[in-house]
Amino acid sequence: MKKVAVILSGSGVFDGAELHEAVLTLLAIEQCGGSYQCFAPDKPQLHVVNHLTSEVSEGETRNVLVESARIARGDIKPVTECHVEDFDALILPGGFGAAKNLCTFAVAGQDSEPDKEVLRICQAFANAKKPAGYACIAPALAASVYDTGVKLTIGNDEATANGINAMGATHVNCAVDEVVVDNEAKLVTTPAYMLAQSISEAHEGISKMVETVLAMK
Amino acid sequence: MKKVAVILSGSGVFDGAELHEAVLTLLAIEQCGGSYQCFAPDKPQLHVVNHLTSEVSEGETRNVLVESARIARGDIKPVTECHVEDFDALILPGGFGAAKNLCTFAVAGQDSEPDKEVLRICQAFANAKKPAGYACIAPALAASVYDTGVKLTIGNDEATANGINAMGATHVNCAVDEVVVDNEAKLVTTPAYMLAQSISEAHEGISKMVETVLAMK
Repeated sequence: MKKVAVILSGSGVFDGAELHEAVLTLLAIEQCGGSYQCFAPDKPQLHVVNHLTSEVSEGETRNVLVESARIARGDIKPVTECHVEDFDALILPGGFGAAKNLCTFAVAGQDSEPDKEVLRICQAFANAKKPAGYACIAPALAASVYDTGVKLTIGNDEATANGINAMGATHVNCAVDEVVVDNEAKLVTTPAYMLAQSISEAHEGISKMVETVLAMK
Repeated sequence: MKKVAVILSGSGVFDGAELHEAVLTLLAIEQCGGSYQCFAPDKPQLHVVNHLTSEVSEGETRNVLVESARIARGDIKPVTECHVEDFDALILPGGFGAAKNLCTFAVAGQDSEPDKEVLRICQAFANAKKPAGYACIAPALAASVYDTGVKLTIGNDEATANGINAMGATHVNCAVDEVVVDNEAKLVTTPAYMLAQSISEAHEGISKMVETVLAMK
């Protein structure tokens, strides 16, 4: 049974991990015969966003690990406890949390700064040549993790793609039900809610990403 | 295309809607060819629970509708705007929120008081003989909605079943991948995380519940 580390970034599309993508990732891992352990950074979220109004809740603070625990039903560890030797693969769902809490792409664009601990773990998987899947906007973090020229996708948004290319990656346009694979880097990416118009569409791409990651040698 | 009203109770198993159950409900509705609109009561949660420690966050308040909006990606309405004539069916995922925010079964047991607005909507579906699905602990609310003797399940926990029977329902033990159907009431229930040991197990029961509800005339 393949063991997958899943890094979450909060709980909710506008300030954390996108919930459909996160839950469907966990389901797909089990449906591919794998098992998972969730991790998240133990630090304050960049923002707390009221998901009814889309406005930032000024003065409110929430912790990324504590909120991510909602997705993991409490079974989650700080990302500092993620050891590459314990896992066969790494998967990061999307949501603004990936670009606000795991790196700062949402506010800094091509000057995005990855969280140091998250970067260290993601690079450990890359250096060990263990496969990884990044969905939605999470490939913006992958651009900091992998070597120049790594092939990845966030769908087809030109401004976002240009920002990622400026960080050294090579963006490839991709349909919502497809994945982009960099076989050398063992990196699989999919647009998910960067393009999905429904949970079924997100499900198709997420499932294909997870299947592709878990099928890699 | 069948239109389904989904009533959420927050966002996270210990104080709101169980996230796997909620997301898998939305996916199953689309996979059965239906569409959904999410609703939630616009009121404070009974508790805010730190999902990392399982402890109540004393002094912290969150709003059920605002937190439920995380599951619905912002596309959610107050439950007072749910009109039975606009929908073919009603579905309620579980999580402690169903027994803390939609009714008070989690703290009051057989003396559970349903939220008045939620009760009114749920009874409107029951009176219109439109099918409904309640998962996990949400059947504790159904016991207040339907006539005495309605058949339902929360799995096989004896104390919980006794509490629900004391409210006038007829509890039937049920496996995690099965549903209990009361054909007269058009009520479908499934244990989900009252029994599920994994997201795959929850997925089986939730999918069967949604399929059964949407197949009902």
